[in-house]
Amino acid sequence: MTPPPKTGTVHGVGLGPGAADLMSVRADRLVRGTRHIAYFRKAGKPGQARRIVEGMLRADAVEFPMDYPVTTEIPLDDPRYAEVLARFYEDCAAHLRALAESGEDVVVLAEGDPFFYGSFMHLYTRLSPQVPVRVVPGITGMAAAWAASGAPITWGDDVLTVAPATLPEDDLARRIADTDALVVMKIGQNLPKLKRALGAAGREAVLVEFAAMPEERVVPLAEVEVAPYFSIALIHGQGRRP
Amino acid sequence: MTPPPKTGTVHGVGLGPGAADLMSVRADRLVRGTRHIAYFRKAGKPGQARRIVEGMLRADAVEFPMDYPVTTEIPLDDPRYAEVLARFYEDCAAHLRALAESGEDVVVLAEGDPFFYGSFMHLYTRLSPQVPVRVVPGITGMAAAWAASGAPITWGDDVLTVAPATLPEDDLARRIADTDALVVMKIGQNLPKLKRALGAAGREAVLVEFAAMPEERVVPLAEVEVAPYFSIALIHGQGRRP
Repeated sequence: MTPPPKTGTVHGVGLGPGAADLMSVRADRLVRGTRHIAYFRKAGKPGQARRIVEGMLRADAVEFPMDYPVTTEIPLDDPRYAEVLARFYEDCAAHLRALAESGEDVVVLAEGDPFFYGSFMHLYTRLSPQVPVRVVPGITGMAAAWAASGAPITWGDDVLTVAPATLPEDDLARRIADTDALVVMKIGQNLPKLKRALGAAGREAVLVEFAAMPEERVVPLAEVEVAPYFSIALIHGQGRRP
Repeated sequence: MTPPPKTGTVHGVGLGPGAADLMSVRADRLVRGTRHIAYFRKAGKPGQARRIVEGMLRADAVEFPMDYPVTTEIPLDDPRYAEVLARFYEDCAAHLRALAESGEDVVVLAEGDPFFYGSFMHLYTRLSPQVPVRVVPGITGMAAAWAASGAPITWGDDVLTVAPATLPEDDLARRIADTDALVVMKIGQNLPKLKRALGAAGREAVLVEFAAMPEERVVPLAEVEVAPYFSIALIHGQGRRP
């Protein structure tokens, strides 16, 4: 009789901000060595995670693209939105769990760092009680953004606040006023609100677009009319420096 | 006549949290390929940055250890402390500048990410107006800490605050109360103050010691009496999750 297969491991692998050589050595080895690889993408698009690993996969790699359900017709605060997403994550997790239970390791690609916002976390909470899951941390998009900006983000005793631009405007303005260094994520459609909140707080920010990618650009946020999806706003700390 | 040498580049290279394979592929290549390598350390100690790259250097590598001046006899808030440090950074920068001007590239090791706290920034501000300086972002110690903790740090619209435990106690308590997710750095001697501030804010944290190193350990902060140098406290965000 054949013994049952040893359960495989699901690896949540941080890919870093977008340049393939900003992946960690550990991530690079896992991506190149794996037979099973999974990644999120918008339906009909190649997806940023998959793009980063282009040319790195084994010839016999089996890909499992996880296409986000198209939800533009359901408002974000509609309970049906959460239901559709929950079902989607359940289905993805079920597939990955079945692979692991059949003895296969799987690499799940995560842009940036797997535990810092992002979609992998929704698989992690579902899978980690059931099969072995290991997380490889990654360089965050914000670290690439402040590297691109040409100035350190935090000095000495600076406090850093990371806030999503999806916050209510008053909240955002209060956070902006009450910190030394600032990172704002998830800008997109919230750019006009972010500009007003910066104005209310009396502070200026730079916008880093496509950090660590060929289109990388750093501009005063006040001069920007449209923020691309890969945009991060920064205010640099001015703390103690001998 | 021989033309003057092309000016070399100073590379500020993020080493990540401590495991050699959590260095980026770009950092790995720079460290292995460089003839000149510089790193900070406490006088008389091998230094964590140098330890991380052990076994990776070229046989003919020229090392430039930068030994922090011993300043325990001068209080932190004494102006002489800043003067001693400023002189030290000036001297280090002068050496690196001379190397670059003679046409040599130099790799300067930086634990974690070069622009997120840390000493490299003091060289950067002095060198970048004079010679080419390039920064390679790295995986932060905090990313390794939340990976080790086994739970995502930020979800959905969570606000993350990164605060040094060197802040005044009231300030620290206010920051702890007023955020979804929290990272506290620079704990060391400030552990009792941090415990009181957490108590005042009515929140509990975990302490991650030696993240990504062999001695890695995750414990409720309330149970810890002494925090090692490599310690980061975390409170995980509890934001939206479908």
